[in-house]
Formats: sequence, structure tokens, C-alpha cells
Amino acid sequence: MGKQAIGVVGLAVMGRNLALNIESRGHAVSVFNRTREKTDELIAEFPDRKLVPTYTLEEFVASLEKPRRILMMVKAGAGTDATIASLQPLLEKGDILIDGGNTHFTDTIRRNQELAKSGLHFIGTGVSGGEEGALKGPSIMPGGQREAYDLVAPILTEIAAKAPDGEPCVAYMGPDGAGHFVKMVHNGIEYGDMQLIAESYAVLKQVLGLSNQELGAVYTEWNKGELDSYLIEITSKIFDKKDEETGKDLVDIIMDRAAQKGTGKWTSQNALDLGAPLPLITEAVFARVLSSLKDQRVAASKVLEGPAAKPFSGDRAAFIEAVRRALYFSKVISYAQGFAQLRAASDEYKWDLDYGTIAKIFRAGCIIRARFLQKITDAYSKDKQIANLLLDPYFRDIAANYQGALRDVVIAATTAGVPVPAFSSAIAYFDGYRSARLPANLVQAQRDFFGAHTFERLDKPGSYHANWS
Amino acid sequence: MGKQAIGVVGLAVMGRNLALNIESRGHAVSVFNRTREKTDELIAEFPDRKLVPTYTLEEFVASLEKPRRILMMVKAGAGTDATIASLQPLLEKGDILIDGGNTHFTDTIRRNQELAKSGLHFIGTGVSGGEEGALKGPSIMPGGQREAYDLVAPILTEIAAKAPDGEPCVAYMGPDGAGHFVKMVHNGIEYGDMQLIAESYAVLKQVLGLSNQELGAVYTEWNKGELDSYLIEITSKIFDKKDEETGKDLVDIIMDRAAQKGTGKWTSQNALDLGAPLPLITEAVFARVLSSLKDQRVAASKVLEGPAAKPFSGDRAAFIEAVRRALYFSKVISYAQGFAQLRAASDEYKWDLDYGTIAKIFRAGCIIRARFLQKITDAYSKDKQIANLLLDPYFRDIAANYQGALRDVVIAATTAGVPVPAFSSAIAYFDGYRSARLPANLVQAQRDFFGAHTFERLDKPGSYHANWS
Repeated sequence: MGKQAIGVVGLAVMGRNLALNIESRGHAVSVFNRTREKTDELIAEFPDRKLVPTYTLEEFVASLEKPRRILMMVKAGAGTDATIASLQPLLEKGDILIDGGNTHFTDTIRRNQELAKSGLHFIGTGVSGGEEGALKGPSIMPGGQREAYDLVAPILTEIAAKAPDGEPCVAYMGPDGAGHFVKMVHNGIEYGDMQLIAESYAVLKQVLGLSNQELGAVYTEWNKGELDSYLIEITSKIFDKKDEETGKDLVDIIMDRAAQKGTGKWTSQNALDLGAPLPLITEAVFARVLSSLKDQRVAASKVLEGPAAKPFSGDRAAFIEAVRRALYFSKVISYAQGFAQLRAASDEYKWDLDYGTIAKIFRAGCIIRARFLQKITDAYSKDKQIANLLLDPYFRDIAANYQGALRDVVIAATTAGVPVPAFSSAIAYFDGYRSARLPANLVQAQRDFFGAHTFERLDKPGSYHANWS
Repeated sequence: MGKQAIGVVGLAVMGRNLALNIESRGHAVSVFNRTREKTDELIAEFPDRKLVPTYTLEEFVASLEKPRRILMMVKAGAGTDATIASLQPLLEKGDILIDGGNTHFTDTIRRNQELAKSGLHFIGTGVSGGEEGALKGPSIMPGGQREAYDLVAPILTEIAAKAPDGEPCVAYMGPDGAGHFVKMVHNGIEYGDMQLIAESYAVLKQVLGLSNQELGAVYTEWNKGELDSYLIEITSKIFDKKDEETGKDLVDIIMDRAAQKGTGKWTSQNALDLGAPLPLITEAVFARVLSSLKDQRVAASKVLEGPAAKPFSGDRAAFIEAVRRALYFSKVISYAQGFAQLRAASDEYKWDLDYGTIAKIFRAGCIIRARFLQKITDAYSKDKQIANLLLDPYFRDIAANYQGALRDVVIAATTAGVPVPAFSSAIAYFDGYRSARLPANLVQAQRDFFGAHTFERLDKPGSYHANWS
């Protein structure tokens, strides 16, 4: 019996779908799961596919061509460490372990360094696109040894999503934790996108009183223009969906308590560590947390009153267009922050990230796929080292033309008592970023006053302390 | 020669001032520093004080009464670990190590547990008030073994600041890391307060065009009312200060690049871990980070235009009063978030924090001391377990009466292009917290659509998945 070019460990939905995806490109795939039931189920469900079941790790490893290519799709954290510990004694120099789980990039850096001591290659890769992406073509963000990537690149390229121009959505991100880092920021950006859409929904519903049917039509229309994206597309469909039990619109029956799996939080925590301003995504993470306090909110709603409701008296179509522009410009600001974080990380961890390529591989397969990403790729192909996407001519024009709409929407929402933390944070960041002078001079004066922390001067270099009292 | 009741290790400015403070209450104090020069300098500067110099740790430890009370004022992190490692072999069961440094509370938890194995007590204490507070009376927030606290309480009580009603600003916070945690949140709150004041300054200066002299008068006036606090007091003085070199107003010469030492960042990162919404303080941290990108901002200011400047046409006095109310209500919101974080931490780490007492010991000595803190103590004495300070009748009234002003200020700033991330975040949080229904139902629908993450329903318990396509 011949040996397989690749094996998959961990046959939960992501692992099994990736195995099926690889197989569908003409490769036999060794598969292994900690409990044999999942392996048997998979084989029973797909008896005609070239999936080679194995029931011990020894058997699994022995079934692979050298250098071995092993894709681990196990529970991130202790699960990954345990799998590595079990596999390591069975592997040889030059073998390649690939972690496709939702791993914190610092764990990937650590594992890459530890395994390198035994001559093993370790690739940490982001895989985005959920179950369906895994099966049909995800966006893939691998980081690790370059020479190891080259040995798995052909298969990853085959299974990756294809962008509208046919380019596969996979590329080498950089050394050690670079791949999982990019995936983390991708997820943070996803939190921001979802919160911004939720705020546009709240404003349209609460300020204009749009029905679900009207909302569905608005997002369908928006999806034809510059907002064209997977998340806008599914949003338009969500408003059309009926609850099978009650016949009511499902969106109205769904509990407004947003859950999270922690990657948005990681993105914010890392931005704080790097000193990279990421307020919009962080507001989105906190908005999910606040939503989860449903009982407190319901209690508070009975004692904390907002402004008196006033019927909307302006031009409804013009306001809908203002919300569209506010959403698009805020999205630009969010990505400007996210890509600035990538830049700060690339400097800090010495990854030499290629931002244009990152935007490129987000164009299909993943949750944040959007027509707009091409504009980011274009910006970086004009200026590889641009400090902030807002400085690019295309985004500068968006800023010039759409900031008025964003201001109007924030003002309308603030007047009406509709919470728009991400929209508000977007315009505050924009106004802060374009301020040559911020009131931080007062903060420094205070710090020097109470703690002798010193300050710099505008007129000459050095650090100074004033005798304040 | 008699032995001393307490010794101080680490004679940088905080350690030396605390030693002098303790001595001034009638105690002889053993002192030790890693390099002997600092010890000699201290003794030479204060030859008549009862400071007992020691030059080896053996000599230092031998000079102390048992159980030994050792206050470590060394560089947080590796410095603290090294000091503990050197001291530990010289100590006996029941001795008390006190870490008064700026230590992350998780380190304090770890050290407390490790030292407890050898029967040593470990107190991690927040000390707030800077150099002057250390010398004359800081606010002190100790956590650790209760029985160890009781043995140091008399001295800590003597050296602590006294509140206007004479109560000392020290109290037992709780086990292991509770003291350093409270200090961390104190610092986060300080970041929020300072950013809010900076935004009030920016709005008054940029929207109304107030001069520094007028600004000084405004803050002086505000300091007579409900905003009465140390930070408002020093702000009023800052606007009066002339630069000795140029004769110009010093505030205008100070570089608008705010520095930070990381405790604000810790507070935000912990809030993200706890799932406690802390958007305002986090915006304040990011505002400092953004201010530090001065070169980028100056470059951006040349290409990113804001709204056209318009002269203010309203009632100036009324607008100043609106800014005052916006500042006070935002401050209330910030503290509501900070104290909700304390509550989440108390549950998570099983500390049984006493929130009213915490507000009490902030009333003097520390940077955030303010008349307003009495209102927080009052709120908790009415309802020890209130979920959020905004629900207390006093703060509810502030919300009812001042939210209009906060909305007006956010609207004026957003219209004028003045960045007010903390003010904006305050009103967004308020509107979110008082919303029985948030648009998070859409977020959950999206998550279930693309990732089968399931959702809850409003009409019955359980978790559900819809067939979206």
C-alpha cells in the first residue's frame, strides 16, 4: 500500500471538512482521531473517497510520505500541546506539523521554537471560512519556516478559496506566529464589521422605523455597491428569514446576547500591548460583552430614561444613504486601525508582513471577504510602507466625501439615544488621527504636576520638569 | 541596640519617602538599598531622623523585630522576584513581606501562594499619591493574608492620608492580589479622568475659543462644585503657569504626546478577560497611544481635512455649563464601569471586595481623590450589591439631568471635528446599558449563519440553529 502525502489529526467538523477538501483535489489523505468513532463515522459516510483511516498515531505516522505533512485540527491550547507531545517521538527531522486551530500566536511562536530544536518544522496557520469554507475553499494564512511552507504550498494552494480574479487565497505570512497573528487580526476586523452592521441596523430601525422587509431590501441594495461583501449579503438574507415555528421574522425572535470565542479580545489586548490604537474593534468587543448583560439591561431600561422619541422629519432616502456612507467610511477606519496593528506587529516581532498580500488573501473564503479589500491591496501596491490606509488617495477621498455622513449618523443616533459605540469611535479616531495638536499636552502637564513624570517641549528636544507649586 | 518594628528595602523616591513618613510617626525604620550609595545619601540628608542604615540583607533582617515587617519598594517584576529570592532564606514563619510596588496583581497572587508554602505572609499593596503622597500620606490598598494585614495595620493607618472626615485612607482589600488589583483599577480610572478633562479642554478651546486664562478660571470655578477634585484643581493651576524661559503659557509649549506606564493598559486587558465592559477607560488608553503618534498626526493633518470651522453662535455660558455637566456625567459613567469591573473581579477571584470602602480610601492621598467619591460610598452603603452605580438614585438623577448636556457636547464636538473618544464612548455605553434590546440579535444571526454558532431565543430557553440557506 502506498503512502499518503498528507494526514489530518482531529476529525471534528473543521478537520473532517479540510480532509474532504484535500481529497477532492485528488490526494489520498490519512486521517486519525483520538476516539475511533469519529474516524469510522467519516469513512462510513464517505466510503468511496480516498480517506485512509488509522487508529493509532504510530499507524498514522507510518502511513505518510516523508517529509511527513501533518495537519492538526484539534482543540487549541492543551489539546494542541498534547497532540504535539504524542506525535513528536514518532517524527523525524524535516517533518512538518501544521496547526490549523484557533491558536494564540504567542503559543505558536513558542511551539515553533521548541520543535525547531528537534529539527521539526512547525506551521501555524489561520483557516477562515467556517465549516463551508473548510470544505470548499477557505482563506489560509500560514506562518512558520519558509522552507516548510514551500513543501506544503502546493496542497494549500489547491484547497484554498479562489478570489474573483482566480488567485488562490493563501500566501506565506512570515515566520513562527505570523499566520496565527494575521488570523487573529482578521477575526478582530470581523468583530468590527459585524458591530458596524449591527449599528447601521439599529439606526435604520430605531431612527427611521424601517421594517425587516425594508431592511432586507436596503442591505440587498447595499451589497450591489462598494459595501459588496459576504457579511452584508448574509445580513440581507437574515431579514428575510422566517421562524419555522412561529412564522414570525426570525431576527426578532433571536436573543440579543452576542457570544464570542475570544479572538476579538486577543486582538484588542495585543493592540494595547503593541501601543497600536484599535479603539473601534475594542468597542465592538465590549459591545458584545454589554449585550451579554441582558438581565441588567432589561432592569436598567426601566429606571434609566433616554431622550423623548421624535418622529424622523428629514429625507428618508438621504438618511439611508448617509447610513450607508457612515458604514463604509467606518469600515475603512476599522481596517486602517487593523492594518496599522499588523504593521506594528511586523516591526515588533520582525515578521516583514506583506500587507497587500494579506488583503488579497482575505478576498475570498473568509468571513470578511469583500470587494473593498482590493482597494487595500491597491493602496499597498502604490506604497508598501504607507503608515495608515487613510493616507492613501482612494481612502482619503472616501474620508473627504463620507465624513459628513458619518458625523450626521452619529449625531442622529446620539440625539435619539441609540447606542453607536463603533460609529462614534470611528469619527473620534479620524478626528484624532488628523489632529496635529491633541489635548495630550494637558495630560502630560498633569502627569508632571502630580508625579514629576516630565514632559517634552514643542520648541526643543529633551525632557523637562516644571516646578508647579 | 533595639530592633525596629519595620524595614524598607529599596530607597528610590517612593521607598525613601515612605520610610521618612513612617519615621515621622515615631518609629525607627531599618533601611536597605541594593547599592549602598542611596542608603548613605538618605542618612546624610536626614542625620537626625531615626533611620537605621543596613548594608547587607542579613544585617537588615537581623535588625527587625519578629514577626518581621519588610516593605519592598523595588522595581516591579524581576526586581521584586530577585528581592524576594534574596530575602526568603533569611526569613522565618510568620514574617511579613509587603510589596508596595506597581505590580500586576497576577504576580502578587503567584507570590502570595508560593511564599505561603514556607509560612511567609505576603501583602501586595497599592500606594497612590506619588512622591508627595508617600511622604505625607498616601492612599493605601493592601491585599494578602488578613492576619498579616492586622499586624501591619497600625503602621499603615498612621502613615495613610486622612479623608476630610478624619478617616485614614487604608483598608484591607482582600486576599492575595486584591490590593494590587484595586490599585490597577484606580490607575485605569485615573486615565479616564485625565482623558475626560483633556476632552473638556479641547472642546472649550476649539469650539468656544477660550484662552488659557479663561480656561484656568473655568476649572477654578468647577473645582468649587461637584467636580471638586485634585485633578481639576491642578488643571486650573496648569493654565496659570508661565514657562520660565519664554514667558509664554507653559501648557502651550508642552508636547502633546502622552506617555504611560502600563497600568491603564492592564486595566483594559483585564476587563477584556473578565468580560466587564470598560470602553471609556480603554478609549482613554488608546487616546494616549494615538497622541504618541505625533509625527503621523502632523503628516495626516496636512492631507485629511475636517469640517469647515464655524464661529460658535450659541450661548457661551450655557455651553460651558453643558461641558461641565458632560464631564461630570461621563465621570460617573467611567466610575460605574470601573466599579463594575471590581465587582466582576471580586466574583472571579473570590475576593469579597467592599466597594464602598474602596471609594472611601480613594477620598484622600491618591490622584483621583474627589468630593464625588463620597457619593459612591453612599450608594454602596444603601445597596452593597448594586449591579451598576448608574442604578443608584443619586446617579440616576445625574443621568436624567445631565445626559442632555453630554449629548449636546458630543454633537458639538462631532460637528466641529474635535475628537472626543471618551465623551462619545460614555454616552454610547449609557445608551447601551439602558437598552432592553440591542442589535446583538443580528450579530448572533450572522454567527449562526456563517459558523453554526447557534442562538438563544427570546420566547423560550435553549440554543437553536437555523437552516439559513
